[in-house]
Amino acid sequence: MADSCLLAKLRGLVGEAGLISDTDAMDPHLHDWRGRYRGAARCVVKPASTPELAQVVALLAREGVPMVPQAGNTGLVGGATPDASGNAVVINVSRMRRVRKVDAANNSIMVEAGCTLREVQDAAEAAGRLFPLSLAAEGSCEIGGNLSTNAGGVHVLRYGNARDLTLGLEVVLPDGRTWDGLRGLRKDNTGYDLKHLFLGAEGTLGIISAAVLKLFPRPRASAVAWLGVGNAAAAVDLLGRTAFELVVKNIPGVRPPLAGGHPWAVLVEASESLAGFDLGAELEESLMAEIESGLVADAAIARSLSQARDFWRLRESISEAQKIEGFSIKHDVSVPVSLIPNFLDRADAALEAAFPGVRIVAFGHVGDGNLHYNLSNPLGEANAELIGRSSDANRIVHDIVAELGGSISAEHGIGQLKRTELLRYKSEVEMEVMRTIKSALDPWGLMNPGKVL
Amino acid sequence: MADSCLLAKLRGLVGEAGLISDTDAMDPHLHDWRGRYRGAARCVVKPASTPELAQVVALLAREGVPMVPQAGNTGLVGGATPDASGNAVVINVSRMRRVRKVDAANNSIMVEAGCTLREVQDAAEAAGRLFPLSLAAEGSCEIGGNLSTNAGGVHVLRYGNARDLTLGLEVVLPDGRTWDGLRGLRKDNTGYDLKHLFLGAEGTLGIISAAVLKLFPRPRASAVAWLGVGNAAAAVDLLGRTAFELVVKNIPGVRPPLAGGHPWAVLVEASESLAGFDLGAELEESLMAEIESGLVADAAIARSLSQARDFWRLRESISEAQKIEGFSIKHDVSVPVSLIPNFLDRADAALEAAFPGVRIVAFGHVGDGNLHYNLSNPLGEANAELIGRSSDANRIVHDIVAELGGSISAEHGIGQLKRTELLRYKSEVEMEVMRTIKSALDPWGLMNPGKVL
Repeated sequence: MADSCLLAKLRGLVGEAGLISDTDAMDPHLHDWRGRYRGAARCVVKPASTPELAQVVALLAREGVPMVPQAGNTGLVGGATPDASGNAVVINVSRMRRVRKVDAANNSIMVEAGCTLREVQDAAEAAGRLFPLSLAAEGSCEIGGNLSTNAGGVHVLRYGNARDLTLGLEVVLPDGRTWDGLRGLRKDNTGYDLKHLFLGAEGTLGIISAAVLKLFPRPRASAVAWLGVGNAAAAVDLLGRTAFELVVKNIPGVRPPLAGGHPWAVLVEASESLAGFDLGAELEESLMAEIESGLVADAAIARSLSQARDFWRLRESISEAQKIEGFSIKHDVSVPVSLIPNFLDRADAALEAAFPGVRIVAFGHVGDGNLHYNLSNPLGEANAELIGRSSDANRIVHDIVAELGGSISAEHGIGQLKRTELLRYKSEVEMEVMRTIKSALDPWGLMNPGKVL
Repeated sequence: MADSCLLAKLRGLVGEAGLISDTDAMDPHLHDWRGRYRGAARCVVKPASTPELAQVVALLAREGVPMVPQAGNTGLVGGATPDASGNAVVINVSRMRRVRKVDAANNSIMVEAGCTLREVQDAAEAAGRLFPLSLAAEGSCEIGGNLSTNAGGVHVLRYGNARDLTLGLEVVLPDGRTWDGLRGLRKDNTGYDLKHLFLGAEGTLGIISAAVLKLFPRPRASAVAWLGVGNAAAAVDLLGRTAFELVVKNIPGVRPPLAGGHPWAVLVEASESLAGFDLGAELEESLMAEIESGLVADAAIARSLSQARDFWRLRESISEAQKIEGFSIKHDVSVPVSLIPNFLDRADAALEAAFPGVRIVAFGHVGDGNLHYNLSNPLGEANAELIGRSSDANRIVHDIVAELGGSISAEHGIGQLKRTELLRYKSEVEMEVMRTIKSALDPWGLMNPGKVL
């Protein structure tokens, strides 16, 4: 089909407001926000409803046109960016943004894929409930993307990943049929649990169009503390090295909560939904015991909401602060929590040997075993060498992760970025089972080609 | 292959101790424990390790022999019973019962499929941790079966189903290859989450041979209360009607915790892993407030461990008590929690119209929306009529469940029992996607044929 004919048919399905074919207007949809990947497309289609989306997919499937699903486009691995061929159509779900239903008594909410994460949080709050998924991009990322990438964020330890927060899904399959799995049930053992297949599949098996998500009681109290500790081995579940010093140095107005040079810092937030329970006192008592035992060197407990925000700001500014000092090599890895000190010892030593003087900025989600283990140049050195040797550094870090039974992508996914790397670390059996499922559900290979597999 | 030749080859793989071909000795493996299903088999094979299991499956796959995976054989839907043809080989995993590893610092345990649920609980306890899956058959059911059926039980509200307690799996695929997905990670976004495909698949996609399971801190305190309430509509999250009266009447030594005829009862257990928190006082305070508001009519709080056990015994004896009064029609359904009163009103009315005088015994897991909604004859009437009209009763109950967006099998699975029923309530699209996955992973249809699909 000639392009003009395809565009006309798509326009017929989604209307003028739902089709972008102008080069400039398409631009924001053709690269990732970090600017690492750039591609081309015939057009960007923005259906406004599930039936429109289903018709668009059915048309493109019949015509054999590759499709790249896209939501808020805030991903870090190029999963929503088309390739350079210009053959694909980008299907953006941002116009599908209705909150279809809030059921406070069932602790559930039904939303469309294009709702931003903050809109979902707000709708939950308006119903006196909590939707706990929370991450830096929450103002612009969209829930369809969060679910397709099984987003993690800062509350995984208590509430789980995006996958764990999902009760039901609606998915437009690669041939344009719609699977309505929008169930709001806590228990349902009626055959294969299809939702888990689409969650985290990065749009390669179909397009998530809507979801039923779990809500929780709102915490009545929370307490935040900043801990200084002496070493990683003594504190398997305490983490934060180097990171906060960079923030203090580079982000104006941010001060370290503790005096003295503790090599590691841990940010703790506890929350409680029961009334009549003095969480702050409980946290203080438990920290005093840990200081006495020698596990924690010093601790600062936030005495106000604004102080708690300051503590969090320190943590959330790490990436920004690191950027100011130039290029860095990033890793998003996980290992069993018990092996974090082992991983750090081995990776630190191997990197120091290969890159003398390299600065290691390690921070993350210690309770989940997830480390953002990033490498920056020694101060004052040019970036070129480090950039040129990124793959050597990746190899060193990921080989150690693999030996410890860890994951080379804990929360960001595979996308384009780690597709080759995946082949090195997954078993052939696992890759074959994944390919078998992909071929079974998308036999023409039109759904987000070149991603994950 | 002649049977004697196949048996010889199997014996060569698993040894004399791993092969049962004697009719009497096979018997316990050829029917379910309720005696509802009975089948036949060429033999029962009991491999002692994953490599043995893999070799057995590879041999049977090459020979085109159907396989019926079986663990503790305590299921309620005939999922582990072969059909009557006698073509199949039963593969029982009970000899694979090693606890391979306990990692307390990672809060995880690696066990083989044939460990009983109690053995897993005990190994966790020995490491100062809690494995929270708990159900009536825990002394004899085996973890491979619990995972293959995504077992529920009494702690789902707080800890989730078996699926939610699983970090990693090892699975022998229908062609005999082994997928090693024994990861102990909280976060891992590297492609499709294959474990969720095998969890709850009732052995139709492969045989779970081992698993890494989540452990939790042991609760430091628990508090148990028995509540009497006036109606279901006023208490969306309170349940128990009729059930406990049957227990009081039929189980010796069981007494009702409350005087007075409250039509509904709710059993509450709260637990807490923090020190320095008076859970009993907290529960009492919250119940006083609910009595004042009128939601709860009366409440008894267990004052000792033995009283708490008595309350639980009342709950756990319901099935036994109901059995003493003769045949009953059982339903294992779930609806959104908010729709429980709606479901009860409609189902009660429809059943009373169709079966005048029928006794409805409803109990379950109110926080999960899961009801065991069972029907018994009016006292003194013969069972024949009720038995003959089981499918009418199922239709009435399941149609209402479906209209409310519920599930016809909340925790027991599909097996043989609800296979036809499934076709009525699942959409054609969902059935087709399930069949596509089944054909892709088990193209010869040898793995637990006649179950689920």
